[in-house]
Amino acid sequence: MSENEFSIINNYFKGKGGHSSTFTRFAIGDDASIHCPRTGMDLVVSSDTSVENVHWPDDFSRVKAADRAICSALSDLAAMGANPVAVWANVMARDEKSVKKMAKGVSNALRRYNVELVGGDTCRSAVNALAVTVAGELPEGSAMRRDLAKSTDNVWLAGRLGFHALGLQQWMRYQRDGEYIHCMEEITPLLSAGMHLREMGVKCCIDVSDGLLQDAGHLAVASRIGIDIEVTHVPNWLHMCRSVGAENFFDAVLHGGEDYALLFTAPAEIKIPNALAVQIGCCRVGEGVNLYRNGKLCEVESKGFLHFG
Amino acid sequence: MSENEFSIINNYFKGKGGHSSTFTRFAIGDDASIHCPRTGMDLVVSSDTSVENVHWPDDFSRVKAADRAICSALSDLAAMGANPVAVWANVMARDEKSVKKMAKGVSNALRRYNVELVGGDTCRSAVNALAVTVAGELPEGSAMRRDLAKSTDNVWLAGRLGFHALGLQQWMRYQRDGEYIHCMEEITPLLSAGMHLREMGVKCCIDVSDGLLQDAGHLAVASRIGIDIEVTHVPNWLHMCRSVGAENFFDAVLHGGEDYALLFTAPAEIKIPNALAVQIGCCRVGEGVNLYRNGKLCEVESKGFLHFG
Repeated sequence: MSENEFSIINNYFKGKGGHSSTFTRFAIGDDASIHCPRTGMDLVVSSDTSVENVHWPDDFSRVKAADRAICSALSDLAAMGANPVAVWANVMARDEKSVKKMAKGVSNALRRYNVELVGGDTCRSAVNALAVTVAGELPEGSAMRRDLAKSTDNVWLAGRLGFHALGLQQWMRYQRDGEYIHCMEEITPLLSAGMHLREMGVKCCIDVSDGLLQDAGHLAVASRIGIDIEVTHVPNWLHMCRSVGAENFFDAVLHGGEDYALLFTAPAEIKIPNALAVQIGCCRVGEGVNLYRNGKLCEVESKGFLHFG
Repeated sequence: MSENEFSIINNYFKGKGGHSSTFTRFAIGDDASIHCPRTGMDLVVSSDTSVENVHWPDDFSRVKAADRAICSALSDLAAMGANPVAVWANVMARDEKSVKKMAKGVSNALRRYNVELVGGDTCRSAVNALAVTVAGELPEGSAMRRDLAKSTDNVWLAGRLGFHALGLQQWMRYQRDGEYIHCMEEITPLLSAGMHLREMGVKCCIDVSDGLLQDAGHLAVASRIGIDIEVTHVPNWLHMCRSVGAENFFDAVLHGGEDYALLFTAPAEIKIPNALAVQIGCCRVGEGVNLYRNGKLCEVESKGFLHFG
């Protein structure tokens, strides 16, 4: 690490996140951060990358891109039902201005969710990018997983779908004051909802980052069950079909991605409050995702962004 | 995550590291990896980035670059005295061939040190890069830190210095079969030495990644002490001065970096075995690093790579 990198870290990263938790003995400043995990608690960790021109357009705010990178990683903790305790951020930047802007976004997001920045690094790169590693705590053995659905479970959704895709459409059309722009500018990781579900005894959850169809498929494959979904039960269905067109919203919900809603399954005994989630389907013996629209089975093809297509 | 990214992770990353440890309940395949830290143990975590054309030349092997990225991160655990238990790798790649090559390097390094790959991601990027996060365990409160040197401690070095810089010189001169090329191609994290030192009661250690002068300076600043170093006590001094020229080796030792030796301090009561390390100086009240060459104080300027100079 150069003296210059030291001063950047001291000025723009150190102490710029949320408050420290009991999890961390020593944060930024040594070869590694030092932690004392609590007895009886499991730790869950996720690590993800965001790259300019791949995960965000190059005319998008670097502050917001970094904020999104943090929140997208926190959403993985929400899907497990974990309480976030620490974040490590690796900031690759074209120039010092980009470092500062990305550091600002990292700080904004971490302060909003009060999570401490405990490590990472910053370096020069021909392309702006961030790798974000997040750790969360939860009681031993209680992590929600995508492979624990039962064929008798119902399928629920916390949060909404399709709005990021609508925002992205407006961005690409240069409607920068569009009604849905804010839905692609900022991610809201459903941390409280995730912890609440885990506390209620929900065992199986995934965050919808790649569109409902693909992520429901991941859950079905991992749990070795089939899933039936009635797409019109998705929140705001009627209103949104009227606002942006039914086929447009249908496509945004199924394939849009990056809404970071929580898709989970639960047995009927667990009473899920209406304020927390809506039931959009049920599991069954078998495999695959069957999609219904007003009770009629739809033919839909899987679509998704191919990194190396 | 696209289906394509899934298949890449399943084919090139999943199960490709070392054996699983008791630390990990569930590795790759969900929104996050799940871990059960041991009671009475602290966890140390380091996260670092390597970028093509910054950390490695673009005509350097991508397999070896990825191997180096893993080993450089493991060296941070060595400096803390920790036993590595888990690695998360974020692989950013220009094309699928680069992913495969970097995955191979990640796997090679993790198998060599038997550390499990428990998570991370892979994505497209205009520049090849890796972010590597490593976690290690050690008994509660025993982590070696750079801020715990006493002014009465002696200064020791485990491992050797200057050889990476000599290898890099040969690389830049296209002497690709040069005697020191292997010293820049591969990093040896001194994991056993680090754990051994921690078990002997050593409290203060840093890995020399930025040259002896800069890293001794970091240790001195963090511990609020001064350090006197006799550079001729560095391993292989006489032999290397004869082989490559005294000024060349002097410069390589002081500023070269990336040798990943362990610089540590210890009170005289701790008997450090000769096979493990050599004494190269002592701490003192005061500040700064005084460098002696055959007992004569040298005037040296700090040099180092500036990421945003």
